Amino acid sequence: MTRPLPMVVPPTGLPARVTIYEVGPRDGLQNESAIVPVEVKAEFVRRLVDAGLPIVEATSFVHPKWVPQLADAADLAARLDLEGAVPLPVLVPNERGLDRALEAGSKHIAIFGSATQTFAERNLNSDLETQFAMFEPVVSRALAEGLDVRAYVSMCFGDPWEGAVPIDQVVRVGKRLLDLGASQLSIGDTIGVATAGHVGALIDAFGSAGVDVDRLAMHFHDTYGQALANAYAALGKGITTFDASAGGLGGCPYAKSATGNLATEDLVWMLDGLGIEHGVDLDAMVEASAWMAKHLGRPSPSAVVRALADRATD
Amino acid sequence: MTRPLPMVVPPTGLPARVTIYEVGPRDGLQNESAIVPVEVKAEFVRRLVDAGLPIVEATSFVHPKWVPQLADAADLAARLDLEGAVPLPVLVPNERGLDRALEAGSKHIAIFGSATQTFAERNLNSDLETQFAMFEPVVSRALAEGLDVRAYVSMCFGDPWEGAVPIDQVVRVGKRLLDLGASQLSIGDTIGVATAGHVGALIDAFGSAGVDVDRLAMHFHDTYGQALANAYAALGKGITTFDASAGGLGGCPYAKSATGNLATEDLVWMLDGLGIEHGVDLDAMVEASAWMAKHLGRPSPSAVVRALADRATD
Repeated sequence: MTRPLPMVVPPTGLPARVTIYEVGPRDGLQNESAIVPVEVKAEFVRRLVDAGLPIVEATSFVHPKWVPQLADAADLAARLDLEGAVPLPVLVPNERGLDRALEAGSKHIAIFGSATQTFAERNLNSDLETQFAMFEPVVSRALAEGLDVRAYVSMCFGDPWEGAVPIDQVVRVGKRLLDLGASQLSIGDTIGVATAGHVGALIDAFGSAGVDVDRLAMHFHDTYGQALANAYAALGKGITTFDASAGGLGGCPYAKSATGNLATEDLVWMLDGLGIEHGVDLDAMVEASAWMAKHLGRPSPSAVVRALADRATD
Repeated sequence: MTRPLPMVVPPTGLPARVTIYEVGPRDGLQNESAIVPVEVKAEFVRRLVDAGLPIVEATSFVHPKWVPQLADAADLAARLDLEGAVPLPVLVPNERGLDRALEAGSKHIAIFGSATQTFAERNLNSDLETQFAMFEPVVSRALAEGLDVRAYVSMCFGDPWEGAVPIDQVVRVGKRLLDLGASQLSIGDTIGVATAGHVGALIDAFGSAGVDVDRLAMHFHDTYGQALANAYAALGKGITTFDASAGGLGGCPYAKSATGNLATEDLVWMLDGLGIEHGVDLDAMVEASAWMAKHLGRPSPSAVVRALADRATD
């Protein structure tokens, strides 16, 4: 038997090509309990680039007190090719983080806002309205230095304290982050409560507010098993950038279960079946994720990685 | 914090109500390595009925040599209310199985055909063409006895030996099973290789061949993480019956990974968010599946069960 493959049957009305924005090394590893050695992280990023991913978020210049898993950000950045053809963005929480990113030679940064008051208070030590004043100097300095800026907005579908989040509130926050000068807005379902209809309605609302769908990325978590169905619904609304995490690494510390990000491999499998181009070599991805799962000492949460890595060891 | 809930946002064009056909006690447990005591199975079926499931496939009258997990079928049937308001179908592989089902007092049976030659040879000891002759006396006798008959057709998207399965071949086999007198055809992705576009194309092909969509059920496995996305695609094609397995119990013995059926709870979560009625109490389902996971001595494969059962024990 050869490796199983999905039959390619493209439905009508979906994009011909999408960009997978890989978040495993940052969003994935920051939510794993294990501390991964910096040389393993550097090798992981190189393997992901070699697998054909067009962009790989490498780390975060957040204070090590908050995210000890990424305390080696400067050391990791020094080991990576930040001038290479594949952008390796880093998250910066504030001006101090931007200083460190600039010192490291980063060309692409991401900021991380909140769609809800409570998460802005708890995670950003800020406020739904005052967060923009906090990000403004970060973005304007970054742009002046010639950097590209992506904005994340988290808790876009539900919040563990506030429950369901009003769609117009998410659109308002997202637009303000874009207006600061971000080139792309990543719409995050941080606690994984989105379902397909809600996803479609939120994308439609951004469209009605004048935001081009090409500036939106979707960032799904699989806490309730919905991530890939939500991605399919988003494809139907014309979304062409999807955040995904190699091997399904990570998970939101505020969610009660251990389930993490949408797995890159499960997304790639679906895109392959839909005939949508993405440029990623699935076998190389599975190998990289199975290798990282061994370093973490547990099976990959990705169904595709489990199925195909099992196969490889038959 | 109260239990998280998806925000209800119904997209246009989906069915208002669906039937969840629960397969956990049969398709789930027959693919678990553990042998579950008959009294635990009976309690499990009762809990699933109490959770509001409209139909629960209870067991299979297959020869115990092939499926030792279900060797207690007659004993289990004797402990269940086969005359109750909720149908409790049983799988019957052949005339001997039908005899046993009739002795047990079953009112609803299911037969299990193959869309491919190789699986018909290996699983049915038959043939793609001769399987119908094998099923004909089973179905005609069952109908004469006043029983309702469902037909499964397996390997509808891919087969581990033959690869991708031609859509017209699946439609031809499925139609012949319906023509024997089955009231419903359950279209099975036995090895989990279906993707959303393939699902839609197969449903469309049945429609073009004159089969009413109301006679079709979809049966997805999550081997490559696609089950729920495929269910969402099938909803968009008007499918109103979905097979699902409590807690994601089971798995195909021919697939290399351990991932099993679409989890009932993950489907219920999506349907709740889509505003589609189904009649199932999610909390009662999670409780029943967490209880069974304890009997099996391992965590539930269902993301919803893991997330909500973790919560309950905080």
